Amino acid sequence: MTIMVQVKDEGAIMNRLPETPKTPGLYLEDISVGDRFSGGALAVTPDTIKAFAREFDPQPFHIDEVAAKYTFFRGLAASGWHTAAMTMRLLAEFGPKVAGGLIGGSCEVAWPQPTRPGDVLHVECEILSVTPSRSKPERGTVLMRSETKNQQGEVLQVLTAKLVVPRRK
Amino acid sequence: MTIMVQVKDEGAIMNRLPETPKTPGLYLEDISVGDRFSGGALAVTPDTIKAFAREFDPQPFHIDEVAAKYTFFRGLAASGWHTAAMTMRLLAEFGPKVAGGLIGGSCEVAWPQPTRPGDVLHVECEILSVTPSRSKPERGTVLMRSETKNQQGEVLQVLTAKLVVPRRK
Repeated sequence: MTIMVQVKDEGAIMNRLPETPKTPGLYLEDISVGDRFSGGALAVTPDTIKAFAREFDPQPFHIDEVAAKYTFFRGLAASGWHTAAMTMRLLAEFGPKVAGGLIGGSCEVAWPQPTRPGDVLHVECEILSVTPSRSKPERGTVLMRSETKNQQGEVLQVLTAKLVVPRRK
Repeated sequence: MTIMVQVKDEGAIMNRLPETPKTPGLYLEDISVGDRFSGGALAVTPDTIKAFAREFDPQPFHIDEVAAKYTFFRGLAASGWHTAAMTMRLLAEFGPKVAGGLIGGSCEVAWPQPTRPGDVLHVECEILSVTPSRSKPERGTVLMRSETKNQQGEVLQVLTAKLVVPRRK
């Protein structure tokens, strides 16, 4: 049996319904300048440094402890792209849980000092700006600064990323 | 038997000797604005996309073809950091052979469109500036712009990197 109910003002009912975005997580409206996120304890070893470098950055200072001594780095150092990739791993776990995922369109990266074997990495993030898109009403841009530090608090990477974030409405 | 020879003007002799830098490769003096470097044919597959993402960027659009359809990317896409890492691999092989290695202190990265399974990547680089360091006479900075393109010539990544480059003198 089906009961038909006539709804005179459907808009009024819709306005009283709780918001039910398709995807759980943070929307642009949920993120504010100054919001902070941090965490992680990702251990860096000679083997992880060399495995990444053999595939993506096979230079002596990233793949050979002995040869590395006679280079700019004066010892084995992780590829900057390895530090960036490990940072992404930390951000996926400890960064803002953006609805639809953590998606960056562009970024700036600096590596003030190299990541070394024995370092244990964590991230500390801060939201710098939240900007609705002018042309695309369904989304906006969040500028987020992330410092990747080792267990001594030394800053190994500074990443400032423009994230694509959906709006609720 | 040792023959001692007195050299009145050692500087004059040194000036006639060929330059013998410790490390082979390009020095700051060898690199000019407008120099170009290019090459590569690095194939991207679903497996390489997912393997990288499982370790460094385990979000649905990077690790699961089906789930990826219902995301921003509307299909499996490589992590931007995977594209960056593959670009580094191409730069190490096809970029300028800088003495002491290709070492970046900082950079800007943009991903105009995602890297997809089936893409075959190459890099096209251009030197934008060559600047001796004011404080460190033994080195300088080279600004290099690198476009990572697929086999259709679509630009997947634009990287502008500040390279640390040694000087001959």
